[in-house]
Amino acid sequence: MIDATPLPQYLVQRYHGWRATAFVENRAWYRRLAEDGQRPRAMVIACCDSRVHVTSIFGADSGEFFIHRNIANLVPAYAPDGEQHGTSAAVEYAVKTLKVAHLVVVGHTNCGGVQGCHAMCSGHAPELEEKTSFVGRWMDILRPGYERVVTLPPEEQIKALERQAVVISLENLMTFPFVKAAVESGELSLHGVLHDIAQGTLDQYDGRSQAFSLVT
Amino acid sequence: MIDATPLPQYLVQRYHGWRATAFVENRAWYRRLAEDGQRPRAMVIACCDSRVHVTSIFGADSGEFFIHRNIANLVPAYAPDGEQHGTSAAVEYAVKTLKVAHLVVVGHTNCGGVQGCHAMCSGHAPELEEKTSFVGRWMDILRPGYERVVTLPPEEQIKALERQAVVISLENLMTFPFVKAAVESGELSLHGVLHDIAQGTLDQYDGRSQAFSLVT
Amino acid sequence: MIDATPLPQYLVQRYHGWRATAFVENRAWYRRLAEDGQRPRAMVIACCDSRVHVTSIFGADSGEFFIHRNIANLVPAYAPDGEQHGTSAAVEYAVKTLKVAHLVVVGHTNCGGVQGCHAMCSGHAPELEEKTSFVGRWMDILRPGYERVVTLPPEEQIKALERQAVVISLENLMTFPFVKAAVESGELSLHGVLHDIAQGTLDQYDGRSQAFSLVT
Amino acid sequence: MIDATPLPQYLVQRYHGWRATAFVENRAWYRRLAEDGQRPRAMVIACCDSRVHVTSIFGADSGEFFIHRNIANLVPAYAPDGEQHGTSAAVEYAVKTLKVAHLVVVGHTNCGGVQGCHAMCSGHAPELEEKTSFVGRWMDILRPGYERVVTLPPEEQIKALERQAVVISLENLMTFPFVKAAVESGELSLHGVLHDIAQGTLDQYDGRSQAFSLVT
Repeated sequence: MIDATPLPQYLVQRYHGWRATAFVENRAWYRRLAEDGQRPRAMVIACCDSRVHVTSIFGADSGEFFIHRNIANLVPAYAPDGEQHGTSAAVEYAVKTLKVAHLVVVGHTNCGGVQGCHAMCSGHAPELEEKTSFVGRWMDILRPGYERVVTLPPEEQIKALERQAVVISLENLMTFPFVKAAVESGELSLHGVLHDIAQGTLDQYDGRSQAFSLVT
Repeated sequence: MIDATPLPQYLVQRYHGWRATAFVENRAWYRRLAEDGQRPRAMVIACCDSRVHVTSIFGADSGEFFIHRNIANLVPAYAPDGEQHGTSAAVEYAVKTLKVAHLVVVGHTNCGGVQGCHAMCSGHAPELEEKTSFVGRWMDILRPGYERVVTLPPEEQIKALERQAVVISLENLMTFPFVKAAVESGELSLHGVLHDIAQGTLDQYDGRSQAFSLVT
Repeated sequence: MIDATPLPQYLVQRYHGWRATAFVENRAWYRRLAEDGQRPRAMVIACCDSRVHVTSIFGADSGEFFIHRNIANLVPAYAPDGEQHGTSAAVEYAVKTLKVAHLVVVGHTNCGGVQGCHAMCSGHAPELEEKTSFVGRWMDILRPGYERVVTLPPEEQIKALERQAVVISLENLMTFPFVKAAVESGELSLHGVLHDIAQGTLDQYDGRSQAFSLVT
Repeated sequence: MIDATPLPQYLVQRYHGWRATAFVENRAWYRRLAEDGQRPRAMVIACCDSRVHVTSIFGADSGEFFIHRNIANLVPAYAPDGEQHGTSAAVEYAVKTLKVAHLVVVGHTNCGGVQGCHAMCSGHAPELEEKTSFVGRWMDILRPGYERVVTLPPEEQIKALERQAVVISLENLMTFPFVKAAVESGELSLHGVLHDIAQGTLDQYDGRSQAFSLVT
């Protein structure tokens, strides 16, 4: 038996509020979305962090964004080894089946995952190095980013590593043959942004200059 | 060089809309969330599907929900094999580090991932059986669910399999020692719901009766 | 000896209902709130009136709102005279210690306190003018509001005075140096609303236009 | 000009949820409450603390409880000196005008106000001793309680002082002639309870035994 219990009342109350307002207003549209299927224009890969609401920042309405959220918005490199790769499956489905036009990696400041990666790589979090640490093994994806930032002054490393979590994901996306092909044929464009939680700003990555600059 | 280009203008425009409204209204709160860190009360595991906005349904404001989204809202069984498991990492971080009080698996109707799983298991999608299919290998998690529904009349199987995507994830969650311990000590409660996109309803799973019933 | 007796049974019964439902559902969260302390996002100042449930209107769950309730939702002007000022203490604690991001004054229609103030100021309630009348002396805070509405047609005065109970409280809040500083630095935003009990509506005050308008 | 801005969107959304559900369901009752006035059966004096929702614990529906909330649920002694006493005004209105049948003082564990009082009285918070500290001067009401608990082992003092915040308020209530008269005539009963946030329990004070015991 699974110990699954009814939803806590505060969630039920909010659900009723949603039903009586947003759902009622958009009933016909929701029915069409159910019948005709989704046709999102973009895929977003963002962090699980409770402070990063890409649906708010991009005013996402129902049906617009195919959203994958994992710790530190990371994409592993292409590895068709027959194992379970949830992130790669989401990318494959978005690009090959849904044929999204845009794929946006959204990183953010104050990321616990990035901080954990930095602690692990600098020898301050041996527990994350253990084979059984799911968070540690997941953050291994960002390890090459640590190598790039370790030569910076200590106080700049975390900030730089947050950006690497976007850059390395973009690099890894290009190792997927179907992503590379879609980008080269112009069917798909890749974007990388970093969201500053306190400032409410976005910096975006430019592949040519290999630099981030403020979205204005 | 990564072919990463500036955000499309429609996203920039929406971002500016968000900045001028929600961000300005909540500037102080967002700064505090950045400084003090997140303290979400619940983790939600939902599908990437663009029509499933749990942030809307549960009126999720910044800082409230730690959200992982993958294809078909699946959680694999506990497998501390040193490989990269993004979903397991998210669950580990939510339960062990953030100590969320609730973990809600949100399934939904009209799920492309579930339909693909059904096609694959019933022999109608051989391409998903290939070792190189990320979606196919990911949907393997739901394969035991197919075995449970295959004896039903054909027209009921998809609907039943959508529910299995919730039930099996709940079952697999209980294979994580730290989830099991937190549930048994009363620190964590598990919940499973199925969202009907067209009807705007929620059904919730009761572990004792092993059945879903409408949330009222 | 204080003549304090056991709770009446109807309250005990309700308490048991709460314990068996909301408490059990949220046990882990309540324990965390007890251990980690509160971190409310907003302070609400509302009337004691039994018909004004701001916790319902704003779906307030445990831990979200620091709520002060007094007669007619009044805030006196800043007066650091060493006397006991319960309202000023609550404001001080919310702004300086809890560092809330929003401070909302919630007035309401059909307010007995406002009606009493109008009667007192218009000479129809001499008993409220007495030094020993706690209600009268408390409503003195709203006396400047009476001066502003007395020139209106009689049938509009009460309604206007209800709004003054919000406006004057906002004005008085700005006389507290720490409120003014927090508002000016952008750490705190002030809001004033009037709740219509019969209509279930909210009007909100805009400082620039110095007018109330319906929240839509 | 007062810098009062529109409500943040998350509050507007919740208000709309409330309007579309609770308000619609109870429209007729709310209209009657507006027309006929309130007739609450009890007054509750509770803390402003965001974790103490007496409306939840006692299942308070609209119109049932006249609720005053201040820091540490304190009632000062009767002092008809012509100054502004918000708490005394609320008590006066509840007992003399509304003629409530019950008056319940609800204290709670983990109270920041009580902790501040203990720190102040034990010499660890000189800033609270300053004339300009509203919180300090307000907590002076509880100073006699500190004298009663200071002889206890240090680890028991805070817990005992939380209870004194209830007992002293009950004692002070009896210094109000109209409270004393209503209690003695049997029109009003006084109750004091302490809510344990983590355990979800209530202890109630018995005037005869001068002790608290668990509500069962």
